[in-house]
Amino acid sequence: MLPRAMTRNAVTDLLVRPLVRNLRPYVPGEQPRTKGLIKLNTNENPYPPSPRVLEALRAAVDGRLRLYPDPKADQLRGKLARLHGCDVDQIIVGNGADEILRLAVQAFVEPVATQRGPLSRRYWVPPAPSLVQSFVPSYTLYPVLAAQHGALFNPVPLQMDYALPEPSQLRTLKEWQPRAALTLITTPNAPSGRGYATAAIEAICTRTKGVVLLDETYVDFAPENALRLALALPNVIVCRSFSKAYSLCFLRVGYAVGPKHLIQAMHNLRDSYNVNGLGQIAAEATLEDLPYYQDRFRRIVETRDWTAQQLGALGFRVFPSQTNFLWARPPGPMASEWYHRLRENRILVRWFDAPELSDYLRISVGTPEEMETLVKTVKRLQRQKGGSR
Amino acid sequence: MLPRAMTRNAVTDLLVRPLVRNLRPYVPGEQPRTKGLIKLNTNENPYPPSPRVLEALRAAVDGRLRLYPDPKADQLRGKLARLHGCDVDQIIVGNGADEILRLAVQAFVEPVATQRGPLSRRYWVPPAPSLVQSFVPSYTLYPVLAAQHGALFNPVPLQMDYALPEPSQLRTLKEWQPRAALTLITTPNAPSGRGYATAAIEAICTRTKGVVLLDETYVDFAPENALRLALALPNVIVCRSFSKAYSLCFLRVGYAVGPKHLIQAMHNLRDSYNVNGLGQIAAEATLEDLPYYQDRFRRIVETRDWTAQQLGALGFRVFPSQTNFLWARPPGPMASEWYHRLRENRILVRWFDAPELSDYLRISVGTPEEMETLVKTVKRLQRQKGGSR
Repeated sequence: MLPRAMTRNAVTDLLVRPLVRNLRPYVPGEQPRTKGLIKLNTNENPYPPSPRVLEALRAAVDGRLRLYPDPKADQLRGKLARLHGCDVDQIIVGNGADEILRLAVQAFVEPVATQRGPLSRRYWVPPAPSLVQSFVPSYTLYPVLAAQHGALFNPVPLQMDYALPEPSQLRTLKEWQPRAALTLITTPNAPSGRGYATAAIEAICTRTKGVVLLDETYVDFAPENALRLALALPNVIVCRSFSKAYSLCFLRVGYAVGPKHLIQAMHNLRDSYNVNGLGQIAAEATLEDLPYYQDRFRRIVETRDWTAQQLGALGFRVFPSQTNFLWARPPGPMASEWYHRLRENRILVRWFDAPELSDYLRISVGTPEEMETLVKTVKRLQRQKGGSR
Repeated sequence: MLPRAMTRNAVTDLLVRPLVRNLRPYVPGEQPRTKGLIKLNTNENPYPPSPRVLEALRAAVDGRLRLYPDPKADQLRGKLARLHGCDVDQIIVGNGADEILRLAVQAFVEPVATQRGPLSRRYWVPPAPSLVQSFVPSYTLYPVLAAQHGALFNPVPLQMDYALPEPSQLRTLKEWQPRAALTLITTPNAPSGRGYATAAIEAICTRTKGVVLLDETYVDFAPENALRLALALPNVIVCRSFSKAYSLCFLRVGYAVGPKHLIQAMHNLRDSYNVNGLGQIAAEATLEDLPYYQDRFRRIVETRDWTAQQLGALGFRVFPSQTNFLWARPPGPMASEWYHRLRENRILVRWFDAPELSDYLRISVGTPEEMETLVKTVKRLQRQKGGSR
């Protein structure tokens, strides 16, 4: 079967769609194997899940594992519906919020003809049904999801201080495409930590013809959320996660709330049993013990504000944060240099290679002890003048 | 924003891709909430996971749940690579085998232009890059996956006894498309339970220009498997699951083995953290305790053969099975009637509505006690002549 004079790799390459062959997957933050690192790079909650959640999980590790889980996570959806005051049909649960984001792209955005090879993403006004747009900077997965689907991605710049454009600015902002099939808004924003008023988000949603997905992964650390928009507007979906705020990254549970017909479209595309059973049990137990988590959110916000103040005093430019991380421009050496120096000192923070982000560090908020160690380490590194890697 | 005179549903419908709006999702077998049913409908292993697997899981239910799992399941992939004698890069782990199947469609098959509305699936010879084909009957998810992707589905009939077409027949079989981008073969077959010789599968793989995915979900109950084809041929992928044979449906872990460049293409499309951490731990512990499972496979095969003989003696036409289920045409009343009567007697089997399947029942092999109850119930129902629902 092998054509002569072709290597095996050339043959297998021919079997893969050109679009997929040329994809660059999303690069998640490092999940180190070595112990003893202070891990401030992927915005995990530094506190464990509630004892009641761990107890519910241990009690469920038995013969039931042989059975399929609830394919639609009905019990969990019921509890979420009661929490948010909506109908069960307005909720879909995903294998982490990442699946929800992918399903939204697949449900609302047409792929463009994909045999043409890699797509040019800039300076071309594309047909709106194939267009995904988001403000930049925000979650760097969004353009990857668009590329994986064979859709086009339109980056719309935030203001210099990461504020959303004002409605009056939108009208003249040449990058803004009100007819984009899907607009993704990280709110509060990552990586800057900036929070947005619901009124500002609403103004954008009502000026958008396509679907708007509000990615509220970090909203538990902010003073307000925009969930009511998903219950009031016909084109708005809110996406939430149990991963970060609720200390369940390991188990992959996220969800979306929105108009029934939009949620149904996402159900039409999800894998039949997309959410593992222990993840469903953990998320349900989490909803039974919210005060535990709210207490941790308060601690994290306190620690965040303390850390921001300390780093500010050491010359870092720290942006105001409504999340569980800080976006900071370090003084002196380049941010990449800081990243490596901290890594050598067993503190892992996130540094992004992209030109518009590479002057900054994104620092997750850990425990008070971890953040004290961070501050001490920064001080020590600053004293070690001239020492280079 | 709402256009006048449009209902809210009409508006949300407009926001959904026509393709997705018209999809009919796969209907999984019933996962009953009520206790006390004998569940013989979704081919789960009747025995629990090994005590060592349960122990490993309980030991892992701790603060680590707050952390992200290994995004690529490297440790599990390493163990699978050693098991199968291949390179780690030849393996991808999925959120159940269902994710693997979806990724294969997305990686190897071009969607056709999707704005045209629902696709006619029959009697049209489509362009091969957009074509998914499988033998029928087999896993009814396959045409759903093609439809979700906007690809075309080509059903190729098996022989009357569910045998694969002979290579000589393939040449003249008008339905067979050797240039289909992706050919899916369930081996052993579901729902018939028929096993296939590796030589017969190889003959088909070498006569196919596109990717062939061998879905070996049930292979642990068969005398041979075709894994060596995935290590030898440039266009063959083998897909396996921890769900059924290894009693881990609840945790969603499947995987594929194949040529590096094909596996890489699927990695390019999967969600960043697609496999939950406890699922990874359970699968790893499973691989450390294979004799436990091999012992259960032997018991299940014994129970299967006993049940086949008993049902045969009661007038069922039972097909030879190399899986953990039986495909049986019941005597007397229609199969749907049998399904309902058994359900009333707290025994749940699978009945498919499709015309070519609706004369049969698919009966998963349970414990010896469960199958004795099944046989006794069938006898009792046969004695109750003329009693109808």
